[in-house]
This record gives sequence, C-alpha cells and structure tokens, in this order.
Amino acid sequence: MSEPQTTNHQLQTVLVGIIMGSDSDLNVMQAASDILKQFDIPHEVTVVSAHRTPHRMIEYAQTAKERGLKVIIAGAGGAAHLPGMVAAVTTLPVIGVPIKSSNSIDGWDSVLSILQMPNGVPVGTVALNAAKNAGILAAEILGTADETVSVKIAAYKNTMNNEVIEKAEKMKREGWENKFD
Amino acid sequence: MSEPQTTNHQLQTVLVGIIMGSDSDLNVMQAASDILKQFDIPHEVTVVSAHRTPHRMIEYAQTAKERGLKVIIAGAGGAAHLPGMVAAVTTLPVIGVPIKSSNSIDGWDSVLSILQMPNGVPVGTVALNAAKNAGILAAEILGTADETVSVKIAAYKNTMNNEVIEKAEKMKREGWENKFD
Amino acid sequence: MSEPQTTNHQLQTVLVGIIMGSDSDLNVMQAASDILKQFDIPHEVTVVSAHRTPHRMIEYAQTAKERGLKVIIAGAGGAAHLPGMVAAVTTLPVIGVPIKSSNSIDGWDSVLSILQMPNGVPVGTVALNAAKNAGILAAEILGTADETVSVKIAAYKNTMNNEVIEKAEKMKREGWENKFD
Amino acid sequence: MSEPQTTNHQLQTVLVGIIMGSDSDLNVMQAASDILKQFDIPHEVTVVSAHRTPHRMIEYAQTAKERGLKVIIAGAGGAAHLPGMVAAVTTLPVIGVPIKSSNSIDGWDSVLSILQMPNGVPVGTVALNAAKNAGILAAEILGTADETVSVKIAAYKNTMNNEVIEKAEKMKREGWENKFD
Amino acid sequence: MSEPQTTNHQLQTVLVGIIMGSDSDLNVMQAASDILKQFDIPHEVTVVSAHRTPHRMIEYAQTAKERGLKVIIAGAGGAAHLPGMVAAVTTLPVIGVPIKSSNSIDGWDSVLSILQMPNGVPVGTVALNAAKNAGILAAEILGTADETVSVKIAAYKNTMNNEVIEKAEKMKREGWENKFD
Amino acid sequence: MSEPQTTNHQLQTVLVGIIMGSDSDLNVMQAASDILKQFDIPHEVTVVSAHRTPHRMIEYAQTAKERGLKVIIAGAGGAAHLPGMVAAVTTLPVIGVPIKSSNSIDGWDSVLSILQMPNGVPVGTVALNAAKNAGILAAEILGTADETVSVKIAAYKNTMNNEVIEKAEKMKREGWENKFD
Amino acid sequence: MSEPQTTNHQLQTVLVGIIMGSDSDLNVMQAASDILKQFDIPHEVTVVSAHRTPHRMIEYAQTAKERGLKVIIAGAGGAAHLPGMVAAVTTLPVIGVPIKSSNSIDGWDSVLSILQMPNGVPVGTVALNAAKNAGILAAEILGTADETVSVKIAAYKNTMNNEVIEKAEKMKREGWENKFD
Amino acid sequence: MSEPQTTNHQLQTVLVGIIMGSDSDLNVMQAASDILKQFDIPHEVTVVSAHRTPHRMIEYAQTAKERGLKVIIAGAGGAAHLPGMVAAVTTLPVIGVPIKSSNSIDGWDSVLSILQMPNGVPVGTVALNAAKNAGILAAEILGTADETVSVKIAAYKNTMNNEVIEKAEKMKREGWENKFD
Repeated sequence: MSEPQTTNHQLQTVLVGIIMGSDSDLNVMQAASDILKQFDIPHEVTVVSAHRTPHRMIEYAQTAKERGLKVIIAGAGGAAHLPGMVAAVTTLPVIGVPIKSSNSIDGWDSVLSILQMPNGVPVGTVALNAAKNAGILAAEILGTADETVSVKIAAYKNTMNNEVIEKAEKMKREGWENKFD
Repeated sequence: MSEPQTTNHQLQTVLVGIIMGSDSDLNVMQAASDILKQFDIPHEVTVVSAHRTPHRMIEYAQTAKERGLKVIIAGAGGAAHLPGMVAAVTTLPVIGVPIKSSNSIDGWDSVLSILQMPNGVPVGTVALNAAKNAGILAAEILGTADETVSVKIAAYKNTMNNEVIEKAEKMKREGWENKFD
Repeated sequence: MSEPQTTNHQLQTVLVGIIMGSDSDLNVMQAASDILKQFDIPHEVTVVSAHRTPHRMIEYAQTAKERGLKVIIAGAGGAAHLPGMVAAVTTLPVIGVPIKSSNSIDGWDSVLSILQMPNGVPVGTVALNAAKNAGILAAEILGTADETVSVKIAAYKNTMNNEVIEKAEKMKREGWENKFD
Repeated sequence: MSEPQTTNHQLQTVLVGIIMGSDSDLNVMQAASDILKQFDIPHEVTVVSAHRTPHRMIEYAQTAKERGLKVIIAGAGGAAHLPGMVAAVTTLPVIGVPIKSSNSIDGWDSVLSILQMPNGVPVGTVALNAAKNAGILAAEILGTADETVSVKIAAYKNTMNNEVIEKAEKMKREGWENKFD
Repeated sequence: MSEPQTTNHQLQTVLVGIIMGSDSDLNVMQAASDILKQFDIPHEVTVVSAHRTPHRMIEYAQTAKERGLKVIIAGAGGAAHLPGMVAAVTTLPVIGVPIKSSNSIDGWDSVLSILQMPNGVPVGTVALNAAKNAGILAAEILGTADETVSVKIAAYKNTMNNEVIEKAEKMKREGWENKFD
Repeated sequence: MSEPQTTNHQLQTVLVGIIMGSDSDLNVMQAASDILKQFDIPHEVTVVSAHRTPHRMIEYAQTAKERGLKVIIAGAGGAAHLPGMVAAVTTLPVIGVPIKSSNSIDGWDSVLSILQMPNGVPVGTVALNAAKNAGILAAEILGTADETVSVKIAAYKNTMNNEVIEKAEKMKREGWENKFD
Repeated sequence: MSEPQTTNHQLQTVLVGIIMGSDSDLNVMQAASDILKQFDIPHEVTVVSAHRTPHRMIEYAQTAKERGLKVIIAGAGGAAHLPGMVAAVTTLPVIGVPIKSSNSIDGWDSVLSILQMPNGVPVGTVALNAAKNAGILAAEILGTADETVSVKIAAYKNTMNNEVIEKAEKMKREGWENKFD
Repeated sequence: MSEPQTTNHQLQTVLVGIIMGSDSDLNVMQAASDILKQFDIPHEVTVVSAHRTPHRMIEYAQTAKERGLKVIIAGAGGAAHLPGMVAAVTTLPVIGVPIKSSNSIDGWDSVLSILQMPNGVPVGTVALNAAKNAGILAAEILGTADETVSVKIAAYKNTMNNEVIEKAEKMKREGWENKFD
C-alpha cells in the first residue's frame, strides 16, 4: 500500500489519520490538518477511496492501529461510504466529515450516509464540511489521555471566548454601524 | 467463506445473488426471490454485512463473477453501504434496494446512501423496499441475452395489463361502489 | 417516427439508446455517450419527450427491442416521466438519470419521479446528473453476455484504482500542501 | 378499450372522468365522486394505469374530449405519472391528486411527480389525498360555463361558513370544555 | 378599489385575472400573460397582497365573478396565502403559482402553502415558478366551453411535438455533437 | 359576528384570544388555554377559519384590539393561513401554532405556511403542536407590562427546574434502573 | 460582562436587546435595528455566542430584565442554540431569527434548532433571515402596553397597504410592461 | 448540584457521563449504559436539561473533567441543545444522540440541532436514537489509551462478524424460507 504522507513531525508517532475519498476534497479537509497542526498533534493526510480503492481502504483501516494511529478522520461526499467502512474494520474511533460535493443533493446524501450507521459500528459525525471541528474533536479525544493537549484545547476555547467579548466591547465603544446617529 | 444458500435449481448455475445487510431484511428482500422463482431464474440468497462482515463482503463481491453470477441484488437500510461497496469490487451490474428499517429517517438515509454513488461505480437503484422490482430488473438484464427470459417478462407485463382492464370492466359491469345509485 | 442519430459505428447494431426529454439535457447526458464510446459500445442519442411527444415515446420504447437495442438510458428533469413510461412499454432494462433542471426543487422532483416506480415496472436509477454512471451500468449489463466488454470495465476500474494510489504517492512524496512546513 | 363505468346519470353526457392508477386508490378517490354527485355532475370512475396499461391510458386521454368529457381527475401514488401523461395527450384540464400509498416516501414522491410538470403540459395539483378538493375544483371549472353549478358551489361554501359559525356559537353558549369552571 | 390594468383587448370582457403578492413577482408571472396573449384570451394583471392589502384582496376575489372573470391565476412566494385566500372568497377556479422568492427555503414554503389547502377550498397548483403552465391551464379551462380556444391549445401542443421531432431529425442528420467522429 | 366564548373571568377584560381553524384542532389547542388558566390570564377560545369563514376572520382580527385583547394565539394545520392572515389585519402580536393534521405532509406544510411570513407581517411561531408554549409566550408578552404575571412565569420555570433536579436525585438515590447490579 | 452597545437614545431605558451568535450575522440582523429605530424604540445590539461565550450568554439573559429590557431578539445560524438558551434563563419573551449561514443545510438546521423548543421554554420564531419581522414583532409586543408604539405600527401597516395600491394604480395607468401593445 | 447516580463500580472513577434532557429519554439512552456495562466501563446516568436546568447543565459540564470523566454522552430530542451546550463548556469529547421524541418533525430537528455545530465546538453525532453506538464510540475513545478496552471492542466486533456468518451458514444449511422448494 502507498503509505500516507505525514507532517514534518515524523520523528513522533503519527496519531491522527486524515483521509478523504478524493483529492478534490482537500480544500475542505485541510482545515482538519490546520487545527491539528496548531495543537502540535502529529498527523498524516492521504486519499483513500472506498469505491475506487476498496482494498487500499481495508488495508489502511486494518493497519491503522498497529501503525500507532489513535483517531481516524474520514471525509467524503455523496453516497459517502468511507467513514463507515473504515469504522467497520478498525477499533479506533472514527470521525466522519460529510462533504457537500458538486452533484450532492444539498449535502443531505453525505450527511445521512455517514451519520445513520447501524448498531455496532459508530461514526462520530460532525457538521457538513466541518473538517475543523473534526480536528478539534480528534484533539479532545487525545486530550482524554494527554493533559498537554487538553490544556491547549482549553486555551483555544478561551481565545474564542475572548474574541467574542472583544468584538462586543468594540461594538459598544465604536458603535456597531455607521448608519446609527 | 460461508457459501450462500442456493435454490433447488442447484444443478443450474446460479445467475443472481440476492444479499442483504441483516436477516431482518428478509421480509422485504423475499419478494426479489419470489419473482425470480416465478421467472425460473436460478438465484441464491444470503446475508452479507458491509459493516459487520467487511471481509466476507469483499470476498463475496470479488468471487461473484467467477462463480457464474450475472447480477447482484443488494438490499440494506440506514447508512446503506452494501450495494455501493459490492459495486466497487465487482464488474457485475449491481441493483440496490433501499430498505426502510426501524431507526431510518423515513427511508431517506438508505435511498440516498445507495443512489448517490460517485462517478465510476454505479448502482441501479429501485424504489424504497421495492425488492420485487429489483428481481424484475435482474430478469430484464438477463433477458438481454436470453430470449426465454425476455418472453416471460413480456408475458408478465401482459398479465398486469389484463388485470387492470378486467378490474375496469368489472367496475363498469357491477358499479364501483354500493353507494352509487 | 424520426429515427435517432447513431454513432459512426453504424454498421454494427446499436446496443444502447440514450434518450432525454429535452435537448437542454444534452450537456448532462453527453457523459453517458462519452463513456460508452470509450468502451466501444455502439449507441444512439436522441430527444424523446414523454410529455411533448407521447406517441413518439411509445413508438421508441415499443420498437427498441426489435431494432436490436439491449439497454435504454433515459434522462429527464422535474416531474420526470420519461424513464418510467419507457419502462412501461418495453421489456428492456431501463436506466434512469434524474437531471437537476432549472426550476427543479433541488433535484428532488426528478429523483423521486424516476426512482419510486410501482411494482412491476422497475427503473434502475443512478445519482442526480450521473449520466456517466448510467453509461457504465449499461456497459456492465452488456458485459453479462459479452466478455470483451466486461474486460474493459475491469480495466477501467483498475485505472481508477491506480489513479488514486498515484495521487496518494505523489502527496506523500511532494507534500500535500505548500503550507505544511 | 374497456369503457369506464358511469353513474346512473347516464342519459346525460358524462362531464368528468375520475381515473386512478390502481383500484387500491379507490378509498381515497371516492371522495371526488361523492362531491360531484352532491353537485349532480355526471361523471365516470375507472382504473387506468400509466405503467401497467400505457396504451389504455393513451386511448383514454385521446378520446376523452370527443366522448364529451370536460375535465379529467387523475389520482396516483409513488412515481405518479398518470396525471401528467394524460395531460400530455389531451387538451382538457387535468386535475392531479397525489396519493400517499404504502411504500411512498411520506407522499413527497407523488406530490412532486404530479406537481412539477414541465412547461407546456400543466396539471392542476391538489393537496395530498385531497380527492374531495379535486371534485370541487372540477365543479368550479364546469361552473365557469354553467351557472347552475356555480350556484351550487356558492351554496356549498355558504354551508361551510355557517357550520363554523354555529360551532363557534355553541362553544360560546355551552363552554368549549368541561374543565373550564 | 384600484382597478387592475387590462390588456388592449379592453372592449372584450376580461376572462382571466393574473394577480401576485408583489411587483417583484412580475418577472415570473409575466409568462402567464404572454401565453394568454398568444391564445388571444383577454386578461388583466395586477398586484394584490393577502398580507399587505387584505381588504383589497377580499374585494378583488369577491367581485371577480360579477366583473366577468372566469379564472384567477394567483402567484406568491414564501408563506404564500394569496391563492388560498382568494379561493376562499370566490367560486371561480383558482390556479396557484408557487414562486421561489429570495428568502424562500428552496421554494418548499410557497409550494406547501399553496398546495396543501384544506377540504372545501381547492387551489389547482402548478410547478414552482410555472406561470406559463398556469396560463395554459387557464386556457384549457376556458376551452371546456369555447372550442376556438381548445383548437388553439391543440395547435400549440402540436407545435411542441413537432419541435421535438425536428430537433431529433436535425440531431440525426447533423450529428448531435462535434466530438462524435 | 358570533362572539367568542370567554372564561369565567368575564368580569375581567379578556386579554388573549385563542383561535383555531377547525374544532378538530381543539385537542391540540387546549394546552394553550390550560397554561393561561394556570397563570390566571383571562382568555377566550373560538373557531375562526381563514378559508371557510374569511369575513369572520377579518372581523375577528380587526376588532380584537378594541375589544381589549393584547395577544392572539392562532393554530392551524396544512396550508395554515389563519395566523398570517390575522396578523395582516391587526397590530397585536400574533403567535402561530402549526398543527400536524391528518393529511399534513409530516407537519412541514403547517410549519412553513405559518413561519415563512413576508416582511412587514410577522407571526411568532412556536413548535409543531406546541400550544402550551404559545400560552407561555403569550404570558411572557403580558408579563412585560404586568409584573404579577412575570412573577408567575418565574415560579413556573423554577418548578420545572426543581422537578428535573428531584428526578436526578431520585435516580441517584434509588438507582435509575433495576437491571443495574 | 462587556455591556452591549446602545443607540443614542441612551437616556431612555433600552427596551429591546438584539443579540446574535457572531458578528458575521450583522448583515442580516441589522434590519431588526433599522425598523426599531424607525419606531423610535430604544434598543441595544451586541454579540453573544451560546457556544463560544456560554457564561456571557447566561449573564446576558439573567440580567436582561433587571436592566429594563422587555424583549430579546436573538439571531443565529446552523445548530442555533442562542435563542433557546436565552429563553431558558429569562422570563422575557424571546424572538428567534434563524439565519442561513454559509455551511447551513439550506437553513433547515437553524429553523429547526430555534423553532422546535420543548414545552416550557418557548421561542417566537420568525422566517429565515427575517430580522425585520423580528423587530416589528418586538414593537407589537411593546405596543400591547404603549399605545404610541401601537399607533406607529398601524401607520406602518397602512403605508404598506397604500404602496401596493399605488403600484397597482400605476400598473393600470401606465401598462405593466412595455411588451403589451 | 445534585450529583449523578453512578453504577456499583463506584470505587472506580466514573469515566463516562450519560446525560439526557428528560427522563422520558431513558428508554432510548439505556442502550448506552448497557453496552458500557458490557465493556466494564464505569459510568453514571442522570438527567440534565439545557432548557429547564441551564445552571445545572453548566455546572455538570464545567466539573466533569475534574470529577474524572473522560467522555460525555448527551441525548436530547426536538431543538436539542444539550450536547452542543455541554460541548461549549467542557474540553472533553462530547457524543450527541439525537432522539426522535413525540412532537419531533420525524427526528430532523434533533439531528440537525446536534450535528450542525459551528466551528470551534464539535459534537460527535451518532444516528437517530443510536445510544448503543454512542456507548461503543465512548469505549473506542477510552480504548485509545486503555488496551484492555480496545481488546474488548475487537472481541465485540468479532462476535458480530461471526453471528452474521453463522446466520448465513444456517440459511444455506436449512434453506432460508419454507416456501422455497
């Protein structure tokens, strides 16, 4: 199997695998990598198609744990089978990212194909195109055993909180629109 | 692999494989077998779960053609990955039957999970729970190369036509409801 | 009846009929012809409207088999009656392509009008606008009796598989984005 | 063609044809006949299936006007092609009744299959299962040229109005629930 | 009440009233007027808002019949109450045109607000934005009592039929795309 | 006009009018009256149909304010025009209750018909069948000017809070299920 | 807590609080402020995020009444929890504005997240993006105790009515389109 | 705060908190507890309502980590704000279970209210009513740091696989239905 590309943290064990059905999904899925990078979590990014490369998909999922991965993030559009099929083959937690692709029916197809998994094979699904949230959820999972990660997430949430408050204060100070006299 | 159960036409080559994700789908999928039996088409029926038995699923799809199958009918509910994953591994035509299972969101999940396959891997999808139509479509496919099957389908369609006309005549003869004076 | 236009394989019997409700559907339906051409499968392309030319539609469907067609691919948008009505008149397998036309309600109308056929008259439906998959499914159907076609489909699927693996390898080799350091 | 059953107003010309795809639709469609009877409008009721009896459907629609019909009410469920196909063959106004049949996806399929007709071929669609309203609309259409019908509709609407007012008065007089003290 | 603007056929009685909730709906509703003009049917066009001018709406509907109107076409978007409220006040047949306005939820709101009328008060609904079909349906209704109109509709449908056949012939003659060799 | 029935608080001015399109809606709408009674808010309950009694509807809405009403709660199902039409005629705040009636398409029709009002004519919509919440919202509106009502709502919310905590404590004390060992 | 920015009516008590989950919602929510300004109703505008600033949200809702607010307008997109959570903490009436944000599934997520509140905690929901209607509804609520506001709303509705009538008269006078001869 | 009830593994630290908006959700949420018990994972079960007990909800989420919890499973129906609000206050991974409650619109409201969280605050959502899968996903998360749990999940998945294969073998051995001859 073609081994996935990893970050330059390669001396560290890769902990999160980010896979997607097509390289056209990269513009959406990049946000998962960006936030993991921000949290200094070693991860890899590659293309694994359930429908075009079913054997590679099986192999990827089957070897993920022994390669040291802790979490798999899988994004796909349309009849999105990648997250669910990977979850069928691994015991790692799988996070699914529904992607609104070009001929999708408004994203409903990918949302339902990923969310509505049968009993026994869960996929933790995030919002449509929400690769960033998939990355944060992966970090939260790692944070259950790694306090340094957990601290970073707390700081991240604190920053979000402060940004809103600063905006509110600026709106109060400067007026929220010019049209107000 | 546990080999699927075949009909008592076992001396003939089995031509159609009817598979489903769970034996709870049998009450829906039986109609596919019933109509194939009516057309004297040798077929097999078994349970293959994409999520609970991914390796069996791959093996079933991969060996289907060499075992002599011509068409695969796959039924599944919820995030229904079976038809699409089978289609990914075989070059046989795959007919998908969306099943409205208990925690389905009104059947939309299975319909979209089966129908909205990406380019390169088609599944010919029939209506929700329409296993009978899946059987007829399989017969029509076989009929493209076997005139005896094609003749039976023509006769079947003719019978449907006549039944409607007989009902219409009976309604005309006897009145269509007692309340009419 | 105006006879449909055929490809330059006219000396061969045309095996697949590609019809659509309006010539405005051509930009979607062309993909069916393209992939059939790639598989060297003789086919014809024409406009047949269930609503504007109901008699032509009946005649097309009724004579399709005797003209040597094996499969009919029918694309239509909105209240898409063409695939189902053709299926009512022929014993050939009919593949339906729902088309998202301008005043469609997000494609739901054409999807449901084609998919939800009553018992007795199946249409093998593919994804919204998925004319390419309709062409591949037609080829798979022909491949059940013609090994040369089946071999081409296998090669086509193999190419898809390799393209994904090459992309994955390139991503590994060159890095999947410049922003990664 | 099997001629449809008419009411005992047979000495009068039948003005409204009520057709449906299956006799299982009778329990819904009867309301159209009931209200037409209440308005003394001669009508006929029969079964015409677009998918199982396409030629009968064409013939019914094509001869409707010359037989004296003024309006056609067509009810169907699922991928409901009957109203639209009849409208394609006749110049009479066609009223469509979407029916929520057993394997319908909550009625959406029949609603969209009837409503979303392309330009050139309208169907005046009423609410899901609203055969009674189809009958009233047919009467309103006849009433545009027949003042006796129009008077009856006005009386009918007046009665509806009075019934609501009587209920409101009774609620005022007697209290609208025992729990109120 | 401000009287609606009529066509230059003013010496003739206006037969069809085209009303809409807002002048921003004119770009959609104009197609109804265009086709009625093509059929030489005198009609009027005006703005009547159920929500902004409820009294004008009541008055318009209440006086429509005595002013000689035979059919009312009412278009509206969002929570579209105009067609149904007009139908509540008149005994004329009312044709509803759901309009996909800017903040509509994909048109579903106007479709359901117009279509799903309660028993007793029908609206003959056409497809989303299908003002042209509303005009044709109005003509078909007038044609039930006026053979000259009926003949024009038949000619119109014939023309549609011929246009499709001509396109098909041209495709056959000239090839349907340059890419075909 | 038939005057609506009031509670036995008739010496007090009636402050809230609860109206509904049909007396079959009483089983849903009663909850609005129940909670208002619990808050000792004088109210009236009656039937007003936008479609069957349009003039009564106009009169009810037009005189509501001068009769002393402060808030109108209007419930309706299907193409639910009552709340929006009442809002068009009064300057009082109108609360809409979408009702899932028998032939409703899963309630979507009444939700969208009430919610999606055009600019200028708001309806404050509550959840499907949520007449109780309509009553509480009416009380909150009255509470903006009447502190005694506001205090009752605060007490009501406090009780809700305590009931949850008591349940949680009981679950902790007694175990939440017998099956736990 | 950062106190919200108020209008220049600051000597008067602020009566309406307009809050939103993100400053990117300002382009939608501004219409609520505009119409309140037109009615001379003192109000404040700020950003309060249920998810990023949960404590600020609780504090805002908890102190709103004691700060003199009478009504809260809360707008949010996606899984829109702000209106409902604010309603959980205050006894003031809360008006919810569903916002169609970028990755929303056509606005359905925000509509349902705001509308479908459980019993006990109502949110008066307006149409998708309908901040203007939220402002009018807030004014109507204030108008129940302040006749000067009520008079302004009546004038506003009268103006809307007149504008429609003027447009209708202009259409009659000048012709509604150049194409009419 | 009322402390949640824990299992009899109380000497061990509770690792998973299962909370729900109402005790009426227990019949759905019990499956999460059952499967965690099967995996010997200490957990607690209690009722926490975002809308009726907002302060308790904040406190529960805020103290969860310091009490030793690793994962929170939150189930809710309708406008389901509990999972998202808890996720806003904690850095633990939160798994959301959409529940189809009585006045839910077919479950769409709870699915979208939980799934469509904004960037920064993820909820890992499982299928409608899929509390069992929530439990398995929680176990998989714990398994990333606890190999004994991971081994149990692997065994569980193996058992599922074997059960399907045994059913398939039994179907082959005994025939899958009596009607087959």
